[in-house]
Amino acid sequence: MPRVVVDVMPKPEILDPQGKAVLGALPRLGFTGVTEVRQGKRFELEIPEVTDAALAQIEKLAETFLANTVIENFVVRVEEPAQETTR
Amino acid sequence: MPRVVVDVMPKPEILDPQGKAVLGALPRLGFTGVTEVRQGKRFELEIPEVTDAALAQIEKLAETFLANTVIENFVVRVEEPAQETTR
Repeated sequence: MPRVVVDVMPKPEILDPQGKAVLGALPRLGFTGVTEVRQGKRFELEIPEVTDAALAQIEKLAETFLANTVIENFVVRVEEPAQETTR
Repeated sequence: MPRVVVDVMPKPEILDPQGKAVLGALPRLGFTGVTEVRQGKRFELEIPEVTDAALAQIEKLAETFLANTVIENFVVRVEEPAQETTR
């Protein structure tokens, strides 16, 4: 079953308190060298078939429901299941 | 600046109430054809240079801090900035 991924991230100019909290904790945990951390949401939607109409519908869904476009950007892309090597 | 993305998703066998809530709302919003929705977190980490050591460190960070590996899977990958066409 093809999977469509919607990544929703805070806009660059928007303060990202969650990302800042993670960034601030890194030295204490012994992690160095990370200069910036931003945290957002990832949605995985399964659809029977990837068509232009289905993708257009998901774009609209992302714009109206999954993302708050005042403070967030979103990216819609098709992800082949094999590409994700989960651990 | 290269960006490393850590995608954290609930394990398939774990109930995903947020995903179910989104899935349940779709018909009411006029969206049809989506058979499954899962919601997770996306972290974008910026590092000065992508090296094996840096990636190993981020893997460890993901395993110990960004993901709860009892109920979540994570995937670490390098994303070239140009690839992301935000809207």
